[in-house]
Amino acid sequence: MADGVRLAVVGSTGAVGQEMLQILEERNIKIKDLICLADPREEGTKLKFKGETLTVKGASADSFKNADVALFAVDSNITKHLEPLAKQNNCVVIDNSSAYRLDDNVPLVVPEVNPHDIEWHKGIIANPNCSTIIMAVAINPIHKAAGLKRVVVSTYQAVSGAGVAGINELDEHVNSHLNKSEMIPQTFQYPIAFNLIPHIDVFTDNGYSKEEMKMVNETRKIMNTPELKISATAVRVPVYRSHSEAINLETEKILSVEETRRILSDSSGIIVQDDPTNNIYPMPLYTSYKDEVFIGRIRKDISSDNGLSFWVVADQIRKGAATNAVQIAEIVVDKNLY
Amino acid sequence: MADGVRLAVVGSTGAVGQEMLQILEERNIKIKDLICLADPREEGTKLKFKGETLTVKGASADSFKNADVALFAVDSNITKHLEPLAKQNNCVVIDNSSAYRLDDNVPLVVPEVNPHDIEWHKGIIANPNCSTIIMAVAINPIHKAAGLKRVVVSTYQAVSGAGVAGINELDEHVNSHLNKSEMIPQTFQYPIAFNLIPHIDVFTDNGYSKEEMKMVNETRKIMNTPELKISATAVRVPVYRSHSEAINLETEKILSVEETRRILSDSSGIIVQDDPTNNIYPMPLYTSYKDEVFIGRIRKDISSDNGLSFWVVADQIRKGAATNAVQIAEIVVDKNLY
Repeated sequence: MADGVRLAVVGSTGAVGQEMLQILEERNIKIKDLICLADPREEGTKLKFKGETLTVKGASADSFKNADVALFAVDSNITKHLEPLAKQNNCVVIDNSSAYRLDDNVPLVVPEVNPHDIEWHKGIIANPNCSTIIMAVAINPIHKAAGLKRVVVSTYQAVSGAGVAGINELDEHVNSHLNKSEMIPQTFQYPIAFNLIPHIDVFTDNGYSKEEMKMVNETRKIMNTPELKISATAVRVPVYRSHSEAINLETEKILSVEETRRILSDSSGIIVQDDPTNNIYPMPLYTSYKDEVFIGRIRKDISSDNGLSFWVVADQIRKGAATNAVQIAEIVVDKNLY
Repeated sequence: MADGVRLAVVGSTGAVGQEMLQILEERNIKIKDLICLADPREEGTKLKFKGETLTVKGASADSFKNADVALFAVDSNITKHLEPLAKQNNCVVIDNSSAYRLDDNVPLVVPEVNPHDIEWHKGIIANPNCSTIIMAVAINPIHKAAGLKRVVVSTYQAVSGAGVAGINELDEHVNSHLNKSEMIPQTFQYPIAFNLIPHIDVFTDNGYSKEEMKMVNETRKIMNTPELKISATAVRVPVYRSHSEAINLETEKILSVEETRRILSDSSGIIVQDDPTNNIYPMPLYTSYKDEVFIGRIRKDISSDNGLSFWVVADQIRKGAATNAVQIAEIVVDKNLY
C-alpha cells in the first residue's frame, strides 16, 4: 500500500464527480491508480488530472476489479445497481447518494463529527446530504459543549444543489427575464431567477419535504442523538453556489456568545466570520470553492434563556459533498480500512 | 365630509408613495382633493391619478393647510421635520417611517390585527415595518386561537425593500455578472446578484440588526403582547419584490394542521396556498402586486409538541407598506377620526 490507493470515481463527469477530482488534485491522498467511471454513454470522455489525461470508462462489473476504494457520485438507483459489483471485488464504496444513509449497517459520516464510525464499515460508507453536513459541522461543537435540546433551521439553498442542470436553468431564466420572454422551468418546479421555491425533493406525509427530513434523520444518526428535536424549512434561492442556513439552537447548558465563538473558532473545519458592525459575516458569493463551513451572526437568542442563533454558509458541492467524501477516503486509506 | 377627504401623499414620487397613489386609485376611499408632496427639488413633477395629471409640490408649512389626512412615505428625519407642520394644521398623519412607531402616544396599526388602536390617535398613526406587518397578519389569528408562546422567524427580503435604488442595484449587478465585470455595491453592503446578505439596517448591541429588532418590538406593540418571545434573522435575497418568511411558532394550546389552515383561511387579508404535493405554496414571483398575505407549507413542527411551521409571502411595498397605510386612512375616514 506504500505506493498509494487504487481509487475509482463513479459519476466522474457530473458536478460532484468533477469536484471530487479537483479536490483529489489539491489534497495529499496518495493515489496509485485513478479510475474514472461514468454512464456507459459517456465512455471515452477525456478528463484532466494532475496534468495527465484520463479516459472515462463505462461502469460495469469489471470496473471495480482493480479498485480499492470507490467514490460514488451518482443517484440512488445507480448506487444500488453498482454497489454490489464493488462489494464483490472488495472495493470500499463511499457513496454520496441517499441510498444507504439511514441503513443501520452503513456508517453515515462527517469527519469533523464522527470519524470513528468509519471503523465499523462493512464495505460501504455513506456521505450525508449537503445541507445536513454543513449543519452538523456547525452544531456538533455546541452539542459537545452544552448539549443540544432543539434545532430550528431555515435553509437558503443554491441551484447547483440540483447539479449542472440547476446552474443552467438559473442562467436561462435570468436571460429570459432580461429578454422579457417566459421563464420555462424544467429542473425546478417554477422559475428560479428572482424567485424563491420552498420545495426541495418530494414532500412526505407530515408536510415536510424529504430534504427537510434528511436534515432531521441524518443529523441524528451522524451525531448519535436519536432523540434530538430538529425542525427544518428548505428553500431554493437564486444563488449559484453555497448553501446558507439560519440556525436557532436551544442548549441544555447556557453558553455565552463569547464561549460559543471560541468553541466554534477552535473546531475543525469551521471559520468564524463574525463582526457584523464591520460588515463581517459569511455570504455564499465568498464561501464558494472553499472547504470550510463559515459561521457568523452569532448571538444569544433573545426569545429563549438557553438559545443561540447563527448564520452558516458553506460550498455544498465541496464540503457538502465532494470534500466530505474525499476526507472519508483519506481516513479509510490512512487507517488501512480497505 | 360627504364629498370626501382632502388627502396628502408626502413622498409621492418614491417607491412607496407611488404605490400609495396606485392603491388609492384601486380602492373606494372618497377623495375630495389629492395633494402630492415631495422633496422641494421634485416640485413640478407630473403624476397621473385617475386619468388626471397632478403636479407635485414641495412639502412646506403651508402644505397641510388644506389636507385632512396625510400619508407619509418618507424617512424618519423628514417625518420628524414635517409632522409638527401637519399637526399645526390639524392634519392627521399616517406615517410609514420608524420615527414614532414605538412612541407610547402613537398607535402602531395593522388593520387586520388592531384597528381599534386607531381610535386613540393623537394626530399621528404609525405604519409598521414591512416584514413586521406581514408576520403580524399571519401569526395574530394563531395567537387569538391558541396563544403564542414563542416565534422564530427567518426572512428572505426583496431588494425593493431598499426602494428604487435596491431594484436598480440588482439590475446593475445582474448585468455586471453577465458582462463579467465587477459588481460594485452602493445601496447594499455587498453584491446582491446571486448572493445573500444577512444584514438589513444597522446592528444593535445584542447582535441583532435593527430590522430584526423591529420584528420583535413592533409585533409586541401591534398584538399587545409585550412579553411575546420572538427571535428573527433578516436576510436580503436577490428577489425584486415580495418578502418571504419561514415562521416557527410555539402555542399555549395545541392546534392541528387542519384547524390552523381553517383559522388562517377564515382570517381577513390572508390567502392560504397550501397543497405542496401539487406544488401549491406561495412564492414571491406570484404574490407581487397583490394586497394579501399568502401562507403555505403549514405543518406540525416535529421538534415541539405545541409547534407549528409555515411559509409566508407578501408584497412588502403593498401590504407591507402602502396598502396598510391606505387601509388605516380608510378607517380614519370611515370613522370620522380626523
